[in-house]
Amino acid sequence: MVYISKQVHFSAAHKLYNPAWSREKNEEVFGACANENWHGHNFELIVTVKGEPDPDTGFVMNFKELKRIIEDCILEKVDHKNLNVDVPFLKDRITSCENLVVSFWKILQPEIAVVSNNRAALHKLKLFETPTSYAEYSGEKLS
Amino acid sequence: MVYISKQVHFSAAHKLYNPAWSREKNEEVFGACANENWHGHNFELIVTVKGEPDPDTGFVMNFKELKRIIEDCILEKVDHKNLNVDVPFLKDRITSCENLVVSFWKILQPEIAVVSNNRAALHKLKLFETPTSYAEYSGEKLS
Amino acid sequence: MVYISKQVHFSAAHKLYNPAWSREKNEEVFGACANENWHGHNFELIVTVKGEPDPDTGFVMNFKELKRIIEDCILEKVDHKNLNVDVPFLKDRITSCENLVVSFWKILQPEIAVVSNNRAALHKLKLFETPTSYAEYSGEKLS
Amino acid sequence: MVYISKQVHFSAAHKLYNPAWSREKNEEVFGACANENWHGHNFELIVTVKGEPDPDTGFVMNFKELKRIIEDCILEKVDHKNLNVDVPFLKDRITSCENLVVSFWKILQPEIAVVSNNRAALHKLKLFETPTSYAEYSGEKLS
Amino acid sequence: MVYISKQVHFSAAHKLYNPAWSREKNEEVFGACANENWHGHNFELIVTVKGEPDPDTGFVMNFKELKRIIEDCILEKVDHKNLNVDVPFLKDRITSCENLVVSFWKILQPEIAVVSNNRAALHKLKLFETPTSYAEYSGEKLS
Amino acid sequence: MVYISKQVHFSAAHKLYNPAWSREKNEEVFGACANENWHGHNFELIVTVKGEPDPDTGFVMNFKELKRIIEDCILEKVDHKNLNVDVPFLKDRITSCENLVVSFWKILQPEIAVVSNNRAALHKLKLFETPTSYAEYSGEKLS
Repeated sequence: MVYISKQVHFSAAHKLYNPAWSREKNEEVFGACANENWHGHNFELIVTVKGEPDPDTGFVMNFKELKRIIEDCILEKVDHKNLNVDVPFLKDRITSCENLVVSFWKILQPEIAVVSNNRAALHKLKLFETPTSYAEYSGEKLS
Repeated sequence: MVYISKQVHFSAAHKLYNPAWSREKNEEVFGACANENWHGHNFELIVTVKGEPDPDTGFVMNFKELKRIIEDCILEKVDHKNLNVDVPFLKDRITSCENLVVSFWKILQPEIAVVSNNRAALHKLKLFETPTSYAEYSGEKLS
Repeated sequence: MVYISKQVHFSAAHKLYNPAWSREKNEEVFGACANENWHGHNFELIVTVKGEPDPDTGFVMNFKELKRIIEDCILEKVDHKNLNVDVPFLKDRITSCENLVVSFWKILQPEIAVVSNNRAALHKLKLFETPTSYAEYSGEKLS
Repeated sequence: MVYISKQVHFSAAHKLYNPAWSREKNEEVFGACANENWHGHNFELIVTVKGEPDPDTGFVMNFKELKRIIEDCILEKVDHKNLNVDVPFLKDRITSCENLVVSFWKILQPEIAVVSNNRAALHKLKLFETPTSYAEYSGEKLS
Repeated sequence: MVYISKQVHFSAAHKLYNPAWSREKNEEVFGACANENWHGHNFELIVTVKGEPDPDTGFVMNFKELKRIIEDCILEKVDHKNLNVDVPFLKDRITSCENLVVSFWKILQPEIAVVSNNRAALHKLKLFETPTSYAEYSGEKLS
Repeated sequence: MVYISKQVHFSAAHKLYNPAWSREKNEEVFGACANENWHGHNFELIVTVKGEPDPDTGFVMNFKELKRIIEDCILEKVDHKNLNVDVPFLKDRITSCENLVVSFWKILQPEIAVVSNNRAALHKLKLFETPTSYAEYSGEKLS
């Protein structure tokens, strides 16, 4: 197995807010991230795919094709958006870095399997919310 | 003259929107940046101060003091905020990177003069809106 | 499992020196790193914690809480210090990047288990000694 | 086990081209990367070695020795070269990022075992072709 | 005046070679950079434009428009190309970082003046040939 | 004029300490930086030289030659050293980032003039003490 990774970025607004809680409880738990008027980030997403290089191309997957998949499936829906309001697949989810990366996995994993005819598989997602904070997910079952 | 610089970061939401224009005109001019539900960025701000090093300390200004001034005057007011809604000194301004950097200058320039007893002077502000887009201002008169 | 990581930095002095050896032998093995008058680095430490996101918060662990733990347990003791002289838990250890990362693990692993009520676990430490040299440790048994 | 990593860089020209195909087919599959007059990159290579720290030195392997091995075995042969023309061990290979990283593994893996007397082992290679595109290999069997 | 900057990247092959000299003289002066089979780089180009922010938009120039100009005038002609062979405006020039940045200036300076109706002016170009080597030019007369 | 810049790094120990003051006064002014047992940094130094490109080479100065000068004049004397103890030209100076950059200027400025036969001149030094704190100097007269 060889692993290839492509990094992309998007800019979005969000807030961390549990609607089952009072405003005070949200501020206590999430601090400034609960600001009702929103804040935002430049997110950096690194998508890692694994597979055997095709002998004809030397590619696990063409970097350009991998980028196009990420653009069509993820960036189109989250770039310059409000993650809590504008993104159907995040409705009713707390938009923490952890939940984002799991939601992106559910979309990218089947798409990469289909597009590559199962020659390649999504291996890991790494999502930077700030230059010093990030979450990673590799598809492990969550209860 | 020696120049010292301190870099800080903040995360904020904003939109580019001219209230004198229709929604359609705003979208035509500002594109995705006009999204009414907001988007956001991790901003990086580099503050450059000039002066002669104090012979007793070797400092133009103590980096820690410079950082404290930036935190008190700027970060406290913009970090984890909505720049269009939450920040009094940006009210009625289009929150472009250019306007932000000029607004920050007006606050930091007198503060650094006062705190340093005019031994140091603000020289330049550099504000990254994304890792590949930034604005700079050095106090030149604007019409 | 989802993995979250927080990066912090500290500045410290050290030298690589085995007291059981002569000065000549130390210089032969460690080269310039054995300079008896010390040298130093800006270290970058990335702490990775794994767990299931809490359904109420979307967090494996709050990034702010993780940062506070690292500051209290590690940075407080090593930042702006001499690693060979000022740090009790490094006494009698060669302060190589490898030994530092293992020593940090022994402190952070139980603390994160306790603070999180075993909902989260330390997964990996990555310590940059220079921008191009780093060591990683995930708790594998060492003989 | 502790893991240590050293990053090095080199600049090289290449093209992606399958000689069994027509020029048109190459351009269709590889796009601009098939330009017959070549293009090039600043490659960044991160070499990760694992082992137990030597109690006398605190080292899995001396960073300086690791760097020297990479320079002698890899950089000497690829830096400021044309990867398709000047590098014997890449002859008749498509110089994709995936194939490069596998070829480098075959050279570095035995060398590190020998030089370290099997105290250390090559664990992973990570090769950046651009700042946002990279391939990784850890020696998994390829068919 | 406010200054805005946009960073873009391109990948290209080149060699440093003075055709008036012998091969030996070229190798003596340019070293490995004279390799007749070419080498290459990931170049990073930062374009800085100055002007007064338009009161209606807050923009010196729209970052997206600035990016489009750079793509049309420069990237289209140099990305994934051989700078010595494929680029008409570099014919008969030594493709040093210094000469590249001056050649790019001659193309971008009039274009930015025209597109902006002289509201904005090219102020500086900064071209990284490697992460640690770059050239800058601001249009000073050259003899 | 075209400007070329080369970035190099070095690792060193230091403390900020004014010997004319008591230990208490030093700690009050310099804080943790006054730790008598030293601390240290990975410094990054960017050296900018200006001149007209030589028509025969396209070079203001060969990057390799510029690097060699910096290595011989600066790095040899400060890398893996204690700046307060091991460096003759810093004796009796407070080793602040500001003082370091002025001291380096005094060494590099005449050397670059001589080596280049006055075809090139030192234009600016930029010294990072941490990734977010730096000082710059361009040779302005200091009282």
